[in-house]
Amino acid sequence: MENSSSNPLFELMEPKTIATVGAGNNPMKMGAIQALSIVKDGFPGKYYPIHPTEKEVFGYKAYSSAFDLPEAPDLVMFVLPAPLVVQILEDFGKIGTKRAIVITAGFRETGPQGQELEEKLKEVARRYDIRFLGPNCMGMLNSHLPLNVTVAPLTGPPGLLGMASQSGTYITQTLPYLREKGIRYSKAISVGNEADIDIIDCLEYLGEDQDTKAISLYIEGLKDAGRFLETARRITPHKPVLAQYVGGTDAGARAGSSHTGAMAGPDYLYEGLFRQAGIIRVESIEELYSHGWVLATQPRLKGKRLAVLTNSGGPGTAMANTCNDGGMEVPAFSQELQAEIKKHIPPHGSAGNPVDLTFHMDSEAISTTIPDLILKSGEVDGLVVHGLMSSGFLKAVYPHLTDLVGDIGAENFAAQFARDMEKPLSLPEKYGLPMIFSSFFGREDNFTAAYQDHNIPFFDGPEKAACGMLALHRYNQVRKRPAFAPSELPPQSEQAAQIITGARDKGWKNLDEYSSKLVLRAYGIPVSTEVLANSAPEAAQAADQIGYPVVLKGCSPDLVHKTGQGLIKLNLNSSEEVELAYNAVLASAGQDIPVLVSKMVKGEREVMAGMIHQEGFGSCVLFGLGGIFTEALKDNTFRLAPLCRTEASEMIDTIKASALLGEYRGLPPVNRKALSSILQTVGDIGLLHPEISEIDLNPIIISGEEPVVVDSLIVLQQD
Amino acid sequence: MENSSSNPLFELMEPKTIATVGAGNNPMKMGAIQALSIVKDGFPGKYYPIHPTEKEVFGYKAYSSAFDLPEAPDLVMFVLPAPLVVQILEDFGKIGTKRAIVITAGFRETGPQGQELEEKLKEVARRYDIRFLGPNCMGMLNSHLPLNVTVAPLTGPPGLLGMASQSGTYITQTLPYLREKGIRYSKAISVGNEADIDIIDCLEYLGEDQDTKAISLYIEGLKDAGRFLETARRITPHKPVLAQYVGGTDAGARAGSSHTGAMAGPDYLYEGLFRQAGIIRVESIEELYSHGWVLATQPRLKGKRLAVLTNSGGPGTAMANTCNDGGMEVPAFSQELQAEIKKHIPPHGSAGNPVDLTFHMDSEAISTTIPDLILKSGEVDGLVVHGLMSSGFLKAVYPHLTDLVGDIGAENFAAQFARDMEKPLSLPEKYGLPMIFSSFFGREDNFTAAYQDHNIPFFDGPEKAACGMLALHRYNQVRKRPAFAPSELPPQSEQAAQIITGARDKGWKNLDEYSSKLVLRAYGIPVSTEVLANSAPEAAQAADQIGYPVVLKGCSPDLVHKTGQGLIKLNLNSSEEVELAYNAVLASAGQDIPVLVSKMVKGEREVMAGMIHQEGFGSCVLFGLGGIFTEALKDNTFRLAPLCRTEASEMIDTIKASALLGEYRGLPPVNRKALSSILQTVGDIGLLHPEISEIDLNPIIISGEEPVVVDSLIVLQQD
Repeated sequence: MENSSSNPLFELMEPKTIATVGAGNNPMKMGAIQALSIVKDGFPGKYYPIHPTEKEVFGYKAYSSAFDLPEAPDLVMFVLPAPLVVQILEDFGKIGTKRAIVITAGFRETGPQGQELEEKLKEVARRYDIRFLGPNCMGMLNSHLPLNVTVAPLTGPPGLLGMASQSGTYITQTLPYLREKGIRYSKAISVGNEADIDIIDCLEYLGEDQDTKAISLYIEGLKDAGRFLETARRITPHKPVLAQYVGGTDAGARAGSSHTGAMAGPDYLYEGLFRQAGIIRVESIEELYSHGWVLATQPRLKGKRLAVLTNSGGPGTAMANTCNDGGMEVPAFSQELQAEIKKHIPPHGSAGNPVDLTFHMDSEAISTTIPDLILKSGEVDGLVVHGLMSSGFLKAVYPHLTDLVGDIGAENFAAQFARDMEKPLSLPEKYGLPMIFSSFFGREDNFTAAYQDHNIPFFDGPEKAACGMLALHRYNQVRKRPAFAPSELPPQSEQAAQIITGARDKGWKNLDEYSSKLVLRAYGIPVSTEVLANSAPEAAQAADQIGYPVVLKGCSPDLVHKTGQGLIKLNLNSSEEVELAYNAVLASAGQDIPVLVSKMVKGEREVMAGMIHQEGFGSCVLFGLGGIFTEALKDNTFRLAPLCRTEASEMIDTIKASALLGEYRGLPPVNRKALSSILQTVGDIGLLHPEISEIDLNPIIISGEEPVVVDSLIVLQQD
Repeated sequence: MENSSSNPLFELMEPKTIATVGAGNNPMKMGAIQALSIVKDGFPGKYYPIHPTEKEVFGYKAYSSAFDLPEAPDLVMFVLPAPLVVQILEDFGKIGTKRAIVITAGFRETGPQGQELEEKLKEVARRYDIRFLGPNCMGMLNSHLPLNVTVAPLTGPPGLLGMASQSGTYITQTLPYLREKGIRYSKAISVGNEADIDIIDCLEYLGEDQDTKAISLYIEGLKDAGRFLETARRITPHKPVLAQYVGGTDAGARAGSSHTGAMAGPDYLYEGLFRQAGIIRVESIEELYSHGWVLATQPRLKGKRLAVLTNSGGPGTAMANTCNDGGMEVPAFSQELQAEIKKHIPPHGSAGNPVDLTFHMDSEAISTTIPDLILKSGEVDGLVVHGLMSSGFLKAVYPHLTDLVGDIGAENFAAQFARDMEKPLSLPEKYGLPMIFSSFFGREDNFTAAYQDHNIPFFDGPEKAACGMLALHRYNQVRKRPAFAPSELPPQSEQAAQIITGARDKGWKNLDEYSSKLVLRAYGIPVSTEVLANSAPEAAQAADQIGYPVVLKGCSPDLVHKTGQGLIKLNLNSSEEVELAYNAVLASAGQDIPVLVSKMVKGEREVMAGMIHQEGFGSCVLFGLGGIFTEALKDNTFRLAPLCRTEASEMIDTIKASALLGEYRGLPPVNRKALSSILQTVGDIGLLHPEISEIDLNPIIISGEEPVVVDSLIVLQQD
């Protein structure tokens, strides 16, 4: 990965001069509309249209080729047919342009021919040291320059939310939608096919961009999860990053790959990656935008105590319930604070938290007086308010009132109730505490519009405001994580390498259990004490040595699933039982195979760990509930190797059954250091031995406090 | 419960004559605005204002009291201060009015005095046979009469969604919001304090109301869960019912009880109740409205195969992913269908399902041609479409185009692209298949408005459209449930009754394990074979008789948690071991107590069942994962007793670990009939013996296929 100062987007997002290639004066062509956005949305630099036939484009002098331009533009945008792009990019390369945006579709996403064209495009760009966005993208916008090359107009003051998306729609077509929600981008980038600049470059750029206070990512697939993780880890401790990932299903992958050619992967790997990276995952585009906006605008939440203020019981209850479900508390207020609040609400209201003012036309209490009392009390860390409204409601009821108030017009009627907004709008800043609002009115209401314009989130439903607060709560957890402290990879074990090489030489697809455990032991992973025996007396002798009770297991690389086949004999208590069991195992196997004599490890708690290689992800570490519950509950979690100690420990806390591993029903807490170490090591083994495709440690029995690997399997890469 | 023809809401919702008491000509009073809604929103009957001083109200002749009226109105609405309501209600009782709405607050929700006033109100109503809504409510509306007594104006044609709410806001203040979303009520009722008519009456009424096609309920607490269940069970097989419940947390309960005085309860009981009743639970008010609207308007989903059609990859992937997560399938289309679709999309589009047309200004393909191909193919059961838009987008980009297209106005510009809507709007009806739409434009777009006005749901986000389809999918599961077939309660066991009485006479708080199991066995629940022994030889003899291995457990009503106290000795294999164990247990107990000698039941799978009494719910049955996992995973589910066989079986399928109880990793499927029977019986015992407050069967070990109760506790009600 390149270092930050060389991130190609700094130059691409802030050009002084732009050329467009292909945009003419036909207002029904997308290319023309995109070029119009440059000239209409206030770009302060120079604009050069290139067009084969037009003399002027939007009143700007048009040039017939790059070579006619008075200077090499900082950025060139292509909106003409695919086959022409490569040649003209070369022209721009020759005159010295270093950044390009290729809007044009018809490349890799269309099949082999398009793929070839895309390779040519990359080759030309490399040759002339050009860094480019696309092809098959919707462009970008920078509200702080300003510069907008998308089809939708950019309006309003500069924003604070940075966005990068593998779907162009979410950059451009949603601009009118975002305006209605009061959400404004700092910078937004559509990455298209990511032939050169990819979404990880965008993440890095937005992480460094001073205008961007939070980052939202729409992801359908990552080509290099490791680089993504490394980049995100540097950003998330100081700037919130949110992501939506939707490529995990068959249909999702079908849709994603046909469109952007991106690489989808199983959802659980992305889930683990996001947790590891400190990224806040969301489940819809609405959340990606609105939670991103909350995180971009509001002071950090410092604790989890929340106040709820409403003009109606229902929304208050719903907000309290939603926040509770998400791990926040809605504590009852002190008697003193309740007494203060009661002075400002009717007797049938409620002051306990949630505060319910009940319905009232006067907005002073709900907007100013009571929030001020609550925020200065020190009893909470944040406030959600539902029901603050004025002109929206008044305009709605006005048609019924005309007979009584006169035909003065809805706006004029509502204007009579207007109040000074300065004090309520200054509250979040005054107290440095987050405030989030909701009502059932949009920007037609003067409060909604004023708050949104002052970077205070205003939602159209109480649960949405509560979920916005929960996004702050989630980011608070991210900020509290210990810093990532990578451990050094241990040296490769010669013994392990020999075992693996030997197995591959013999054509084995996997190691037998004994060899698997030798590899694990070579890296210090605690495995059950065991001896390989080749006769009944040998087995009995081994058992005497190990100590009873013991387990006997047939051991061969061909025997992967031993349960239920008579190949395991548990709980043997004497040499006689061992000799009988030995013969029984051989009889079940139907061939002369070695038999593993293992110490019988006892413990009520069983977990599992593992490693898999996944294209684009490298070595992934798995941890979960083990034994019989593995498949039935699928209570597990993944991370990318190498893991630091903290990340391994987080994996243990992530599974639903994590309480089981603490002090639980009279059982001691598991040795967390030992268990974390197993998780780190299993990932390290994956990195040190790329010939291994899969490691499975299941079950790991918690014996007393200590995790002991009782069964394991190492699967080898197939050439 | 009264039978349906006597439901008091039929008369209340369709009066021919209405009086209001308290509403005058001051437009800033809520009461006046509510009365205005009656006269402005088209009520076809007679309106009589009662007012102490005004001669006319809104131009209607005002009367000074009920006795001055020319007739007894069918309905009277009170908006005057609380202390006056009781007397005036009596006046109306005297003239013969039988239905009332008490908007007025200041009753039970304000404390003991208000409670007293509410009792007086109920007493007067009872005396005159008056059924009433409220007090402390926001009224109701009937869009089919029409009649609206809420503060917000009623607009648009009659709707199809019935709503009843324990929060008035959701009936009245959201009307402008709902108009923007294209959602229209058939009937909506704010229940307030439910002093007389309650939300269950509303559910029953809406269930029978022909104008209502789906029912949404906002619930903060139920006083009689059993009556709710009985009512809902009759409705949900033929009409969808949705509910939001938010009272389950401390703060939620605090907010709810202060406002409506409703009875909140633990969330898990409501979760179980809704599942049992076939009610679709939602998590936000937005879902309550919008999913209700989908279910009210769309043809039933007959299978789970879904088509996804978009003008952009991102929303298509997101919709496919959301539907997959919710249990629907997005199957790849046949080659034939794909070939047909490809004729209508550009080469870089995608025809596989999701279908991605890529961005295009022509709406024919996305609105008509391709939906028609998909729906007539027979390859799917429903269709979600994102990106259908025209004037919304055109008006958004118009400001940039004025130089090129002329200053013709945004509306005129957009109008050039208008198309015939008849064919696309007729598609759902033509094929009898559900269609749901989304785009990022609201009613400013001609498509959004037209679809909404034709009862085709149109959302503002792709995941929302997908979740709407999932609501249809969930209702499809409800419809496929076998009919509720109540089993007869078994006769009370004399032996069980004697054991319980005996224990209570001795002042025990709970039965000892042996007695608990005797009660269970008396009702046919399979428990481990066991004998109570009072000496070591007795124990050894019992063990010989039962067969080895056995378990010894100290047995006394004082010993509830035996684990880890040396009071249990497992896996004893000989009479010698038993005698030693007997003495060890007594030593641990420190007193001379009987010892239970039980057959050692073996099995890898452990579940648990139980019964608790909960105020408002009666006997509730619990089922979940047992043994060591009980607390760590809390994988369990509740239902109300009595359970029918199907409901018991559904409980088994509800827990996350249900796969464990089928054929699993070489283990046979559990005897489902036997396990269901345990669940039914444990509920029956709760009903037959109200002296029992709690039954706990944990673990129930699955021995081979058979569930066997290995430990149990019966707790008695404390007087």
